[in-house]
Amino acid sequence: MQDTHISLAHGNGGRYMRELIDEIFARHLANPDLDVQADAASLSLESSDVMFTTDGFTVQPLEFPGGNIGSLAVHGTTNDLAVAGAIPKYLSLNAFIEEGLEIKTLDRIIKTLAETAAEIGVKVVAGDTKVLRRGEGGGLYLATTGIGIRHGHALGMHNIKHGDQILVSGPVGDHGIAVMLAREEFGLRGDIQSDAASVLSLTKAAMQFTGLRFMRDPTRGGIATVCSELQRATGMGIRLLQNQLPVRSAVQSVCDMLGYDPMYLACEGRVVAIVDKDDALPLLKTWQSIDEGLEAEIIGTIDSEIDHVIMQTEIGGERILDELEDDPLPRIC
Amino acid sequence: MQDTHISLAHGNGGRYMRELIDEIFARHLANPDLDVQADAASLSLESSDVMFTTDGFTVQPLEFPGGNIGSLAVHGTTNDLAVAGAIPKYLSLNAFIEEGLEIKTLDRIIKTLAETAAEIGVKVVAGDTKVLRRGEGGGLYLATTGIGIRHGHALGMHNIKHGDQILVSGPVGDHGIAVMLAREEFGLRGDIQSDAASVLSLTKAAMQFTGLRFMRDPTRGGIATVCSELQRATGMGIRLLQNQLPVRSAVQSVCDMLGYDPMYLACEGRVVAIVDKDDALPLLKTWQSIDEGLEAEIIGTIDSEIDHVIMQTEIGGERILDELEDDPLPRIC
Repeated sequence: MQDTHISLAHGNGGRYMRELIDEIFARHLANPDLDVQADAASLSLESSDVMFTTDGFTVQPLEFPGGNIGSLAVHGTTNDLAVAGAIPKYLSLNAFIEEGLEIKTLDRIIKTLAETAAEIGVKVVAGDTKVLRRGEGGGLYLATTGIGIRHGHALGMHNIKHGDQILVSGPVGDHGIAVMLAREEFGLRGDIQSDAASVLSLTKAAMQFTGLRFMRDPTRGGIATVCSELQRATGMGIRLLQNQLPVRSAVQSVCDMLGYDPMYLACEGRVVAIVDKDDALPLLKTWQSIDEGLEAEIIGTIDSEIDHVIMQTEIGGERILDELEDDPLPRIC
Repeated sequence: MQDTHISLAHGNGGRYMRELIDEIFARHLANPDLDVQADAASLSLESSDVMFTTDGFTVQPLEFPGGNIGSLAVHGTTNDLAVAGAIPKYLSLNAFIEEGLEIKTLDRIIKTLAETAAEIGVKVVAGDTKVLRRGEGGGLYLATTGIGIRHGHALGMHNIKHGDQILVSGPVGDHGIAVMLAREEFGLRGDIQSDAASVLSLTKAAMQFTGLRFMRDPTRGGIATVCSELQRATGMGIRLLQNQLPVRSAVQSVCDMLGYDPMYLACEGRVVAIVDKDDALPLLKTWQSIDEGLEAEIIGTIDSEIDHVIMQTEIGGERILDELEDDPLPRIC
C-alpha cells in the first residue's frame, strides 16, 4: 500500500480499509478457510468436544526481545487452549490500531503473528480491524479468540487432592522482565529474552498421565496468582519450596535490584501442572526430555492441612504468598 | 465493589481484577457454561456446521439513544452470524477498559450486554479484560467473537446471478445519525433512535427461500459499501432505485443539512438480501409481516451488462456510487 502510517480512513469500511486488510492482514494470514469477504467463517471440526477461549493484548512496547504483540497474541490464546487439554485449531483476530502507527511496524507484527500461527498449526479464519484516534490507542491492541478440540481426560481444579504435586515447566519471570527492560524506563539493560512460546508439546506430553489433574499457564500475576486461585477454588493450602523454583540468575538480579518477587512475574511460555504424587517424577522426566521443559522442576505440594499458600524459604523460614494487589509491571501482556 | 472508577490495579491479575470480574462481568453474564476460573470453555455443538466470526467496537459515545456499546457488541457479532445463515450460540467478550471509567457506567453496559445476549439466546462463555492507562483507551473498547450453527442451504456471493433482486429490511442510516447526534458536536438535536437490533428473525425467515443467494448487514460504509463489495466480487453491476430506498424523514433532514449520503451511513439492525427474482416479492411480503421488517423494500437489481453500482435518482438521472473513501462519521460502531 502507498501509505506509510495508519489514518482514520483505514478504519472506515471503504477503500483504504480494504487495502489495509488485503495488503497486510489477508496477505500474511492467507489460508483456505480465511475469506476476508465473508461475515463468518465455516469451520471443520471433527469432534464435538470443542474448547473456546479469548485473550486481549496491550503489551508495551509492541516489540520486545523474544517476540512482539503478534506472536504473544497467538501464544497467549493457544496456550490457554493447550493447558485446558485441547489442540488449538482456529483463531479469530481483532486489531484496534491507533492512527499514526507506522504501517511497516504493523506489517512486521502481523507477519510474526501469521508465522507463529503456522508453527502451531492453528488457522486465523476471522478478523476485524478498528482504527482509533491518535492518542486513544497505545499503538495497537489485539484480541485473539481460539477454538480447539479436547483430547484425553477432562481436567479441572475439582480433581485436585491432598498430596498432589505442583510442577512448573521452566524458569519463571523471563517475559515480565524482558518486556520491562525493553521499556528502558530504569536505564537497565540485559540479555533477557521473553519466554513467550507455545506450550503445546508440554501439555500434550502431560495429558498422557492419568494422574494429571489440572494445568495453567502462569501469565499476569505469575505463579503466586495461579496458587492463590488454586487455594481459593479447592479450599486446600499449598506449600512451595523456594529453592526448587527455577529463576534465571539475570532475572533474579533485576528482581533484587528493583524489589520484584519472581513469584508474581508473568511468563508466556510456561505451564504449571498439578499431578498425582505417583506421576510427579515421571512427568518431570518427560518434560525434561523435551526442549521446552529442560529446566522443569517440582516446586510444591497441595496440603489440605493448611489454608494459605506458604513459601518455604531457602534458609528454612516460611512466608505467606498473598494475592497480588499492587502490580509492579502493568501492560506486560 | 467498593471502587467507583477503574484503576490500573483492576487489570493486574490480582485481587482487584478478580473483584471486577466477579462483581461486574460474572454477575451479569452468569450462565452454566461460563466459568471465569477456566482457561477455556467447553462447548456443546450439536452440529459440525460451525460458523465463527468476530467484531470490534469503539463507538463514541458509549451510550446513545437505542443502545450502548454493550448491546452493539452483541448485535454486531450475532448479526454477522445471522446473515451468514447461522443461529448464534456462543460469544466470547474482550473488554479493554480505560483507567478512570466510572464503574457504574461499565456495570450498565455489561448489564445491557447480558440482557441482549439473553434475548437472542446466545451465551457468553469466555472473556478477558485489560485495563489501559488513562488517555489511552477512549473509555471502553469491546470485541466479541461468535460461534453459530448453520441452518438451511449455503449462501455466498458466488451464487448471485444477473436479474437477482436486492432487498433491504428497513430504513437505513438511523444508527449512524443517532450516534452522531448523541455526540452533540453540531448543536443538533433529534429523536432518532439507533436501529441496533438482532436481525435473526429476518434471516431465519429469509433462509426458507431457496432462491436466497446472499445476505449482509450494512454496517460501516452502509448500503453503498455492501453494493461495492458485491460488484467487485461478482464482476456484475448493480442498479439501485433511489425512490425505493427507505430513509426516515428525520434521517434525511440531518443528511441534507450536513451533506451526508444515507447510502453510506451505518445500520446495525438491517439486512441486505440478494434473491432470485421469483422469490423477491414473496420474501418482501414475508419480511413486511415481521415487526423487524415492516418497512422492507426491494431496492435494486443485479445487472451483468453494467460494471458499476448505479443509482437511478428520483428525477430520472443516474449517478455512480463509488467505494467510500472519506468517512463522514468515524467511531460509529
